Amino acid sequence: MFEPLLPLQFLRRAARLFPDKTAVIDGEHRYAYRQLEERVHRLSNALRQRGIGKGDKVAVLSPNSHRMLEAFFAVPQIGAVLAPLNYRLTTPDFEYILDHAETKALLIDWEYAHQIAPLVERLTSLRHYLLLRDDETPSAALPAVDYEDALASVPANYPEAEAPVIDETDLATLNYTSGTTARPKGVMLTHRACTINAIHFMTSLSVRPTDVYLHTLPMFHANGWGGIWAAAGLGGTQVCLRKVEAQPIFELMQGEAVTLACAAPTVLMTLATFDAARDYRLAAGVRIGTGGAAPAAAVLRRMEDLGIEVIHLYGLTETGPFLTSCEAQPAWDGLAVQARYRLKARQGIAQLFADVRVMDEKLCEVPMDGQTIGEIVARGNNVMEGYYKQPEETANVMRGGWFHTGDLAVTHPDGYIEVVDRLKDVIISGGENISSVEVESMLYEHPAVLEAAVVGVPDGRWGEVPKALVVLRPKRHADERELIAFCRDRMAHFKAPKSVEFLDTLPRTATGKVQKFALREAYWQAHESRVQS
Amino acid sequence: MFEPLLPLQFLRRAARLFPDKTAVIDGEHRYAYRQLEERVHRLSNALRQRGIGKGDKVAVLSPNSHRMLEAFFAVPQIGAVLAPLNYRLTTPDFEYILDHAETKALLIDWEYAHQIAPLVERLTSLRHYLLLRDDETPSAALPAVDYEDALASVPANYPEAEAPVIDETDLATLNYTSGTTARPKGVMLTHRACTINAIHFMTSLSVRPTDVYLHTLPMFHANGWGGIWAAAGLGGTQVCLRKVEAQPIFELMQGEAVTLACAAPTVLMTLATFDAARDYRLAAGVRIGTGGAAPAAAVLRRMEDLGIEVIHLYGLTETGPFLTSCEAQPAWDGLAVQARYRLKARQGIAQLFADVRVMDEKLCEVPMDGQTIGEIVARGNNVMEGYYKQPEETANVMRGGWFHTGDLAVTHPDGYIEVVDRLKDVIISGGENISSVEVESMLYEHPAVLEAAVVGVPDGRWGEVPKALVVLRPKRHADERELIAFCRDRMAHFKAPKSVEFLDTLPRTATGKVQKFALREAYWQAHESRVQS
Repeated sequence: MFEPLLPLQFLRRAARLFPDKTAVIDGEHRYAYRQLEERVHRLSNALRQRGIGKGDKVAVLSPNSHRMLEAFFAVPQIGAVLAPLNYRLTTPDFEYILDHAETKALLIDWEYAHQIAPLVERLTSLRHYLLLRDDETPSAALPAVDYEDALASVPANYPEAEAPVIDETDLATLNYTSGTTARPKGVMLTHRACTINAIHFMTSLSVRPTDVYLHTLPMFHANGWGGIWAAAGLGGTQVCLRKVEAQPIFELMQGEAVTLACAAPTVLMTLATFDAARDYRLAAGVRIGTGGAAPAAAVLRRMEDLGIEVIHLYGLTETGPFLTSCEAQPAWDGLAVQARYRLKARQGIAQLFADVRVMDEKLCEVPMDGQTIGEIVARGNNVMEGYYKQPEETANVMRGGWFHTGDLAVTHPDGYIEVVDRLKDVIISGGENISSVEVESMLYEHPAVLEAAVVGVPDGRWGEVPKALVVLRPKRHADERELIAFCRDRMAHFKAPKSVEFLDTLPRTATGKVQKFALREAYWQAHESRVQS
Repeated sequence: MFEPLLPLQFLRRAARLFPDKTAVIDGEHRYAYRQLEERVHRLSNALRQRGIGKGDKVAVLSPNSHRMLEAFFAVPQIGAVLAPLNYRLTTPDFEYILDHAETKALLIDWEYAHQIAPLVERLTSLRHYLLLRDDETPSAALPAVDYEDALASVPANYPEAEAPVIDETDLATLNYTSGTTARPKGVMLTHRACTINAIHFMTSLSVRPTDVYLHTLPMFHANGWGGIWAAAGLGGTQVCLRKVEAQPIFELMQGEAVTLACAAPTVLMTLATFDAARDYRLAAGVRIGTGGAAPAAAVLRRMEDLGIEVIHLYGLTETGPFLTSCEAQPAWDGLAVQARYRLKARQGIAQLFADVRVMDEKLCEVPMDGQTIGEIVARGNNVMEGYYKQPEETANVMRGGWFHTGDLAVTHPDGYIEVVDRLKDVIISGGENISSVEVESMLYEHPAVLEAAVVGVPDGRWGEVPKALVVLRPKRHADERELIAFCRDRMAHFKAPKSVEFLDTLPRTATGKVQKFALREAYWQAHESRVQS
């Protein structure tokens, strides 16, 4: 019996089966599933009342909150498409995205009103603003209706008879990538893709109905990795968090008996280095999924000390996001700590419904030797339909029937995939490929190095050569010559950095990735202007 | 990116990711995933060589074995439809089913050859027999090719280029119900239904990649509840078991560190009453899923003592099978033992992708009061497409867009569904509905009663009246008068049995359900012949 696979069903089920169970906690707000469903119906009705319907785009610009969470059900419920915006972008980015997506309505948190206020006159198709706030004053004036007022003025039931027919292959969300190198691209994800990804979330993080899930990860980021839908599907409790700071996180983890979270490695680092971490009593068996970059050994060790299991996941917005999970093998438990952490820092093996391989340019799999570098490609229901209104860019990444991630990797003899670099971060020096990650790993071995990024900079003789950008540990010292010598003593000389620059901090994207593009840009802009002049 | 949902993908994934991990253990045979996949490819090729292709029916008649397990992947892989046969049926049943399904090939275990030998001349469309055996002599001569010879004579690779296009809505299996009251009906399950049900198996039994799954449940029964696909999907190990006997089960559980199994309550009873159970050292955290009837308190207690968690599941072959799971709530842990067992014996709440409700004849939900009886109806991707070549029977059970289970139930205030009776097992006495299960539960309260079944028998005044068929505990005594009085003292008089008959054992179906039809038949045949004469 065919029924469409819709992430919406996860809430319907939970509201039927666990009406009185706490669904969402957000500061003073606590909603049971019955209430959450009512609020979702009200938001659907408020949008319908404003003429929003099937295929229309509704954007949301907000830190994690129960109201943003509601949008992940209410917008797809009326057949509209949710576009969650990265709140770390700038006003010109928002203008580009809201215009590109022909956005008809925007749910906007009071904190970001000033980012949008300058655009109101110019975005003529964007007619409806709902302001998300409690008592706070918005950061700028907007022609907005208060979210709670809008909800209060419409019915709490959503009659099935009035619901549009939604196919599982219809779009559910449009996720604009943060765009480190170009204009943001709109990743089109169907209801089916979101559903399958929620299953990946459940299976790779072993989600249980009794889980209490803390939203440390921004919900805008690849739909909070699907955690909103997965946790609701199994009837878990979700805890919202406006800002990522160690103390409130530990307080919530203790106070709400949190058992599950997701976070980028930088957030794990924040938790791992929080001095008072041991003062909190955490629930038994806490798991934190991490991704976006490999978790460092120090982080894994500290998390283990706190009784927290870290599960390393890998994927992209374009893939729903999950592609792989570094499933821990029982045999690893017997290994020395460093060896175990090295295994756990790999990206891992394909998730249940994903086919993920490392291939060469001819779409032949590279040998599973841990040496031969290829590009990670993937197919599966979790993969996007393409970039919205960008058929060329879509065709480019989808060639040969495989989505091309742009990540370079090896496959180890045990089948586990390990990313060695972003395709665009490879340094080609005198015809030799240099993995910037490999050079960075070497730098991290030096006791004075806190953070390191290696980029290719122009060189008259070699085309480009590796340059290291380094942040030193507090109270530690090392100079350029020492770090270069350290690398040359331990790796092929052509791979060692030719120069080192010391910075106070590395620029990172909204998701914690080092913005190598930004680091590289300065050197190449100067070079190009020289070449052109 | 659309990819069909096929249970076959589960094996492809495991063979890619865990090629050297043990996939199947069956006596002396141990196959890694790489070998299992090779054997599956060979079986696919052996069938293709015999002209079996898309839509053709291939039946299998075998106790649980690694060869039968192979068929669950190899037959759907070529687009053919697998019909697993209940080995407890009789030769006329087999003739009916094999003919009704236009079966083209039969995989038959040596032990059941004599059941099929008389049919060889008559089933003209059934042209190919593959004999499953090691060294054993078949129980009768058949024009069969040895399974291993057939596999050895074809290639071990299955070229994707030669594979037929399989839609997820194509049939994967045709499961003939055991037919307690009529001819077996062929339940049509699609690839999509089997995939979704495998997900239900994973989520409701919390399957992990490290699980070792013991096939105590017959694989013919609703495709082994989907466990074959689910365990392979996550890369678990499966242990086959030819016969359900307590000692070999405990030996395998200890020897192979089994962590997961499924079994009817009668099998649980066999395990629970095995004297030497405590002599075996079981793995930590063993779970056993049970269904087909509610597990008795004594069984739950004994299993808890052995450190085994029992998870009560409910469903029918027509629903893939899983519809509900009696998810344990943390609050139950604080309850008195008997109260807890009563809660756990309920059928529970809808599985992840199933919509399950208790409705009255007008398809309105009954109140959640634990009192009002309705019929369990369901919809969802796990529900069958219908009965093969039986449009009227299909329309009858699918009316109003809901599959009608024929099971009568109440919904408790906490949303948990509890079956009170089979629709056809309700006794209507003088216009009053009597739940046979309710009367049976009362009889079970009597210390001398080991097993009890209550059926309606003809009565000149009341139409029908309840009669109890009872098996007494060893060394315990009770007579008819005592048991009737025991019931009359404790329940409405019209519900108490009017007569009691003592038996050595109750007739059960292949799946452990008491065959009330068989018990009832004798009384009504006599009655009907009297009425007709």
